[in-house]
Amino acid sequence: MSALTFKEWSTAHQHRFEEVLRNLLPPSDIAPVRLHAAMRYSVLDGGKRVRPLLAFAAGEVCGAELKLVNFAAAAVELIHAYSLVHDDMPCMDDDVLRRGKPTCHVQFDEATALLVGDALQSLAFHLLTERSPNQDASRQLQMVKLLAAASGSRGMAGGQAIDLDSVGKQLSLPELESMHIHKTGALIRAAVLLGAHCGEEPGQEKLKHLDHFGKCVGLAFQVVDDVLDSEADTATLGKTAGKDADNDKPTYVTLLGVQAAKKMASDLHGEALDSLQEFGEEARRLRELADFIVLRKF
Amino acid sequence: MSALTFKEWSTAHQHRFEEVLRNLLPPSDIAPVRLHAAMRYSVLDGGKRVRPLLAFAAGEVCGAELKLVNFAAAAVELIHAYSLVHDDMPCMDDDVLRRGKPTCHVQFDEATALLVGDALQSLAFHLLTERSPNQDASRQLQMVKLLAAASGSRGMAGGQAIDLDSVGKQLSLPELESMHIHKTGALIRAAVLLGAHCGEEPGQEKLKHLDHFGKCVGLAFQVVDDVLDSEADTATLGKTAGKDADNDKPTYVTLLGVQAAKKMASDLHGEALDSLQEFGEEARRLRELADFIVLRKF
Repeated sequence: MSALTFKEWSTAHQHRFEEVLRNLLPPSDIAPVRLHAAMRYSVLDGGKRVRPLLAFAAGEVCGAELKLVNFAAAAVELIHAYSLVHDDMPCMDDDVLRRGKPTCHVQFDEATALLVGDALQSLAFHLLTERSPNQDASRQLQMVKLLAAASGSRGMAGGQAIDLDSVGKQLSLPELESMHIHKTGALIRAAVLLGAHCGEEPGQEKLKHLDHFGKCVGLAFQVVDDVLDSEADTATLGKTAGKDADNDKPTYVTLLGVQAAKKMASDLHGEALDSLQEFGEEARRLRELADFIVLRKF
Repeated sequence: MSALTFKEWSTAHQHRFEEVLRNLLPPSDIAPVRLHAAMRYSVLDGGKRVRPLLAFAAGEVCGAELKLVNFAAAAVELIHAYSLVHDDMPCMDDDVLRRGKPTCHVQFDEATALLVGDALQSLAFHLLTERSPNQDASRQLQMVKLLAAASGSRGMAGGQAIDLDSVGKQLSLPELESMHIHKTGALIRAAVLLGAHCGEEPGQEKLKHLDHFGKCVGLAFQVVDDVLDSEADTATLGKTAGKDADNDKPTYVTLLGVQAAKKMASDLHGEALDSLQEFGEEARRLRELADFIVLRKF
């Protein structure tokens, strides 16, 4: 699809991937129907699918088969979706709106939202075990390990725990960075690496560059989110705006101010592109995704 | 350890396994410390470790290396522990006591309990990726799939969803059975099969028998739990007694009466032992575990 513009490429993948998710999620007419309906409600028709797009773009770099990347991309997206469902619950962020729709616990109930998150996490790991004749089992096992590490107490869940502890506290920039490297960064890095693992072995050096790309983009993503959250209104954002500042949570904007936060996003953008220097045209979509993530709104 | 009595065998494994868990759980002096402390609080020093014992016993049947079964047993136990933490939360069973200690959300807080469950699930899958030179990667991947299926919406989490929907309803015996086959049964079956998968390939026929054993024992476990819950007092049980009946949840006792429930447990016990007929002395611990699960209190 190299002749497509980025807009065409990403839209095509988004539409195609929506169908992939529809088929991979349990049908809502199979028992337990309420749980399955709530799982589909929480995953489908929502989001820009940034993590799957990163997986597809990294898959292109390594010549991966699309069918294989679909499972990896879906696994990452289900982990992301489960974290949003649990994050929105009353005992966490207590959010009522997500992607312009009532959050899962509002639309269904709290107990169901809890189980939706739990079951989506199990399903994510289930998907990574789908075999392909073109892939080595030990590499697939490596992917399970990578996703488990990115999701767990030293990855995403750990970042959320640091976030909980930070409410009402003054964090230093390195502390804020550490929180986000875990909370959002770990899964974005995992998306890039999982996509790459679906293709030919890129070698340690190239993997290191892809990982650094993922790290920079993941951090930039959060900085941009903080800027958007401080500037946008609820309608544009599709979730309750200004929520973090209201909750007295430290953000890049409260810590640095809007201008310096924008500068930081721009610097990370540059660093992300630098780490792709030794890749050629096949890394085009990764570069475009870095642009998209940083420049989407300003 | 075939010269040991069952009591000696199980106590030795319980003590040994406690050390295994202590070493596999993240230390509580590593960030995020509160989350790690809460994970350890929720897993360590508790329970009879029935699922790990089943994995060890099934591992013996298939001549598995103990080091390998440790990871599988720990993975199953972490899934079980996470389900208890989430189950005890206010939006689910709202329990304050578990294994004689305050539940995780009482001892810590709700948000931490939510993350503890999430992170324990990730860690369970992480452990199953620990490589051993003696095991084939495709069999390990098969184990990940097995645990994911047993945990997800068509396994344990699905059983909990059916349980939620059943409050205040009159269930038929087949409906109650279907709920428990998912809610408790799936993970107990998985424990047996995971232990078996750590050893030599037992062949489809033997696996089928082991699976049927797991199914019967899993169901018997729940029936016995219902009987104990209706008869025991809170101190003996280590959790709030009579809770299910109070909550107007259907149980084998409310549906069948105590005597018929005991008869059902005894029938399942017999069926479990029957399915081990073609195994010899190497299945001794599985037989003893079936006895223990059914006869522990009456």
